[in-house]
Amino acid sequence: MRIGIDILGGDFAPEATVRGSILASELLPAGAKLVLIGDESSILNICREKGFDPSVFEIVHTSERIEMGDHPARAFMQKPSSSVVKGFKMLAHGQIDGFASAGNTGAMMVGAMQVIRSISGIIRPCIATSVPRPSEYPCLLLDVGLNPDCNQDELNQYAILGSIYAHNVIGIKAPRVGLLNIGEEEGKGNLVTKAAHQLMKDSTFFKFIGNVEGNDLFSDKADVIVCDGFVGNVMLKEAEAFYAMIRKRKIVDEFFERFNFEHYGGTPILGINAPVLIAHGISNDIAIKNLIIHAAEVIKSNLCEKIKEAFKECPE
Amino acid sequence: MRIGIDILGGDFAPEATVRGSILASELLPAGAKLVLIGDESSILNICREKGFDPSVFEIVHTSERIEMGDHPARAFMQKPSSSVVKGFKMLAHGQIDGFASAGNTGAMMVGAMQVIRSISGIIRPCIATSVPRPSEYPCLLLDVGLNPDCNQDELNQYAILGSIYAHNVIGIKAPRVGLLNIGEEEGKGNLVTKAAHQLMKDSTFFKFIGNVEGNDLFSDKADVIVCDGFVGNVMLKEAEAFYAMIRKRKIVDEFFERFNFEHYGGTPILGINAPVLIAHGISNDIAIKNLIIHAAEVIKSNLCEKIKEAFKECPE
Repeated sequence: MRIGIDILGGDFAPEATVRGSILASELLPAGAKLVLIGDESSILNICREKGFDPSVFEIVHTSERIEMGDHPARAFMQKPSSSVVKGFKMLAHGQIDGFASAGNTGAMMVGAMQVIRSISGIIRPCIATSVPRPSEYPCLLLDVGLNPDCNQDELNQYAILGSIYAHNVIGIKAPRVGLLNIGEEEGKGNLVTKAAHQLMKDSTFFKFIGNVEGNDLFSDKADVIVCDGFVGNVMLKEAEAFYAMIRKRKIVDEFFERFNFEHYGGTPILGINAPVLIAHGISNDIAIKNLIIHAAEVIKSNLCEKIKEAFKECPE
Repeated sequence: MRIGIDILGGDFAPEATVRGSILASELLPAGAKLVLIGDESSILNICREKGFDPSVFEIVHTSERIEMGDHPARAFMQKPSSSVVKGFKMLAHGQIDGFASAGNTGAMMVGAMQVIRSISGIIRPCIATSVPRPSEYPCLLLDVGLNPDCNQDELNQYAILGSIYAHNVIGIKAPRVGLLNIGEEEGKGNLVTKAAHQLMKDSTFFKFIGNVEGNDLFSDKADVIVCDGFVGNVMLKEAEAFYAMIRKRKIVDEFFERFNFEHYGGTPILGINAPVLIAHGISNDIAIKNLIIHAAEVIKSNLCEKIKEAFKECPE
């Protein structure tokens, strides 16, 4: 397994990305190789400072960087030697098995959609996030931002994507899928969720448990919660705000500490042909470590192949 | 000022409603009269048990009740002597200045829309909720459930309604209005919020500060946050769930205690011709007390007249 990591992506690159790679390298399964795409001398310097042997890594040198403020599509065209473009080229050519970055999200999306492309049958890819809850496994919420105007067919596909992800990556045997709504009863909701409910209740591709509500996000009711990217993004940011208040109030609690988004290891773009993971620009070294571990799990689970398989037999 | 209260509405009626009325009666401004609409002998019994003189109240007797499970429109037709229907008739005839209930929300909506009706110029009424934040005043979030499919014109009207409410009832001098969105920049969002942003940024009817995000709900950025009833309902329930976890984890904190929704005093239906307030079915006596106090504030602020005034000169 070869995992590509963008060393130049993120607000704290290259320090956080190299240090995160060092932390991850000690935890990765045997046979996994980290491919660091970025400035070689910086990488060697940071390894030296940490007393770490850089020969553990494979280094693909480049010093060209897509900045956070760059126009995504334009930068992707105009910076062909950038770490992001290099990463996507290597992924497309099978030189790495997955690519992860905390850099310019727009540029990552351009690469995902134009180089790696959607799996045949998928209307629009999405991103998912794991939300902590008291039970053993987190709850998967999707979409959390890629598709703010979903129709019922897209929501129905997200149920399939979420179900496959929860089973293969999180490890939940038969994930219970809920449709985020504003009432439990079948007839409740806005026009799109009412229509989606009708599609989802007859699906044989996942285990539908019906509508769930905003207060079910942290409960054990559903393992996968499906919503449009507008609502998902708002919910996620509200949870982040609540955690920020917990910190501000100096409350120390083991459960709430799981909401520490600083440590979040990014999210794969679901529905494209190869593993691509994106992370917060503010990712610190622990977040980058978790991003790489997460990438390894996604690659190992064969997620993309399993999604392709499901969508071969699945109606759009 | 005469405040009508539905004694038969809510899961814990008539105990909670009568006890709440007793608690409120000691806090209401001079000249305020509570009109209790419900079973007279129960009211007298509960007052006697509490050692309270029932002559403080005006009692309008009825024992007919719209149940929580009743079909709203049908019950409104078939139970003309019910406390809810009586309350709306009295409000329409000016025998009370406002009407509050923790009963069947659907039946309350039927009364609001068919008996009291929308103010001329208002496309669709909405409901708002006050969300605690560290600053002096809470943040007003609307719509939180009446209108799950909003268009840009409705969102723009909610900005006006929220601004008038925040100024006149909450007491914020020049409320800053934010549009809930998934990015700060003008071009971000779904189709409806993008269009709403264009309408709102040129409005002279409120002070627009631009887009706000999910994590701004508990911040000091905006005093009024406008969203559709689907997103607002989800956000509100997510906050309820977070507070439930705070309780479950036995965290005692003065700020988070403000999220105790058990004590919430209901919400007025904004955009109709007279003050109507609805509350959670699970309201206990403290919630009912707060509901009545809230009704008194809404009546005293002359909110409905101020909204009528604003919509006379306001484009739809």
